[in-house]
Amino acid sequence: MSSSAASETSPRLPSFADIEDAARRLVGQAVVTPLLESHSLNARLGGRLLVKAEPLQRTGSFKFRGAYNRMSRLDAEARRRGVVAYSSGNHAQGVAAAAQILAMPATIIMPTDAPAIKVTRTRGYGAEVIQYDRYRESREEIGGSLAAERGATLVPPYDDPYIVAGQGTIGLEIARQAEALGVRLDAVLVCCGGGGLISGTALALATATPGTKVYAVEPAGFDDTTRSLKSGRRERNDPSARSICDALLSPEPGALTFALNARLLAGGLVVTDDEVRRAMATAFAELKLVTEPGGAVALAAALTGKISLAGKTVAVVCSGGNVDPETFCAALQAA
Amino acid sequence: MSSSAASETSPRLPSFADIEDAARRLVGQAVVTPLLESHSLNARLGGRLLVKAEPLQRTGSFKFRGAYNRMSRLDAEARRRGVVAYSSGNHAQGVAAAAQILAMPATIIMPTDAPAIKVTRTRGYGAEVIQYDRYRESREEIGGSLAAERGATLVPPYDDPYIVAGQGTIGLEIARQAEALGVRLDAVLVCCGGGGLISGTALALATATPGTKVYAVEPAGFDDTTRSLKSGRRERNDPSARSICDALLSPEPGALTFALNARLLAGGLVVTDDEVRRAMATAFAELKLVTEPGGAVALAAALTGKISLAGKTVAVVCSGGNVDPETFCAALQAA
Repeated sequence: MSSSAASETSPRLPSFADIEDAARRLVGQAVVTPLLESHSLNARLGGRLLVKAEPLQRTGSFKFRGAYNRMSRLDAEARRRGVVAYSSGNHAQGVAAAAQILAMPATIIMPTDAPAIKVTRTRGYGAEVIQYDRYRESREEIGGSLAAERGATLVPPYDDPYIVAGQGTIGLEIARQAEALGVRLDAVLVCCGGGGLISGTALALATATPGTKVYAVEPAGFDDTTRSLKSGRRERNDPSARSICDALLSPEPGALTFALNARLLAGGLVVTDDEVRRAMATAFAELKLVTEPGGAVALAAALTGKISLAGKTVAVVCSGGNVDPETFCAALQAA
Repeated sequence: MSSSAASETSPRLPSFADIEDAARRLVGQAVVTPLLESHSLNARLGGRLLVKAEPLQRTGSFKFRGAYNRMSRLDAEARRRGVVAYSSGNHAQGVAAAAQILAMPATIIMPTDAPAIKVTRTRGYGAEVIQYDRYRESREEIGGSLAAERGATLVPPYDDPYIVAGQGTIGLEIARQAEALGVRLDAVLVCCGGGGLISGTALALATATPGTKVYAVEPAGFDDTTRSLKSGRRERNDPSARSICDALLSPEPGALTFALNARLLAGGLVVTDDEVRRAMATAFAELKLVTEPGGAVALAAALTGKISLAGKTVAVVCSGGNVDPETFCAALQAA
């Protein structure tokens, strides 16, 4: 990948070297988030659970990594014209924060049912927010025509090699942090919407800690990647499906991300909204970490034994913590 | 201080070397907690705010540091007889968790109005919990007679050089983490109950980053250290005072801790319960960190401008996150 290309959206798959390059670019901008551990949870699960805490990332989710890696490669002319992105809220904040750092205008297309905290925070980073109906309008069409109109660069949420490589820095960090703890990871569980985070993470882990199994975790009704891994082709979700995991409501796997995931993942796991609420309550009580619903699905899979942790060391990625107080407290009460 | 003494409670003041020794002892047991930062908060405050996140510590608060440092020095006979401690809940968990690691029995005397989560978690570490009335009975008397009866070692919550040195490892870490960021700390704000955490932290900072001012932060009605720093002698709180900051309700400064604090602190700051609730809500929204009321007072002082952050770099210690969901959600709603 050329680092001087202005609006490149190459279909070429990213490599491990692209992730290492992204990691260098993110030094001093992104947080190397800690790998948290609760001895109480370990005792309960009979294994060792390590929690990659991306709510502690800049903007409150992992999305800043990919956005900054992509946008920092834009040249002066492209920066002047700015960027357009569509997002339920975490990619929105990642793009808006990166745009603020890089001094470029950003327009973000967000669904009308996005959590208020995500809309407020995106505007807080100086971005213009345009809202649309998630179930009636196409964000790809709105974003594409807006980008064309303004000559702006569209920053896709996952189907882009720089985005995938940026998110993949999480896999690099997990491997290094596990090594520092002197442990070998049996498995890593990662949430999956469009698949950018998990494809990048799995790509990093395949080289950094070969033999570690990587599982996608999805909310019930949005198990497109789980089904696609079984059938071998990209399956779509039923458009009538609903979930509290607002960050993971993609209609189908990405083309680029699924090409990686089909090769790299050990399988998919599915959790219910109730299991997610209980995981949010556990993260509150045992880890002191604020997680949003979509950010807690991998933890939920570990806590409910979707794969056994007995005698094993397993890392889960908690991908974000941008949640309204009402949703958070409803989860604590339901648990 | 001799490391082989069984039940030593020397009145000798701890030194910087004792903190370095404690830090070595805590390797692999305590978490080196991250120094968190929110760019949104920095922008709002016009300075740089660094948050030492002790809710992410083992047991959910800093108290494990001092308890383990103290208890790991007990000899085999003392370990067999076990330990007794009195605590509103965080020292309780610190002692209980250290006792579990060191395979010794622990009995903890806790007030009847301690948060349920603290009692449950203390029992979860295998300790026996005895409850008492915070406003009618003396925990010192109950603890002392129980320890004498059983031949157990009393682990005081703050007035002990090993406890102070253990908590002081936080100061060492803050200094090293600030250095890694390439910043000089203008001030560090630390919550203050009996004064163990702040005296140890101030002792570490005085050597590790001389010139950095250290301020005690206390809840309104429990500003004994603030008033004592002014008068030069240990002042008591009005016994009728109440606060949501259950971790900081000591009646007066400790003897050993005040001897250090009188020499090391720049002054005291006082925050109201409402300011604490808003700080808890800010930690939720901007830092994704669960804080308990007593753990959020230093953050509250920074957010409400008790000292100005304009153009400065200031660290605050968030000391713990053991809070019931009801209290936490009430704080989010009130903010």
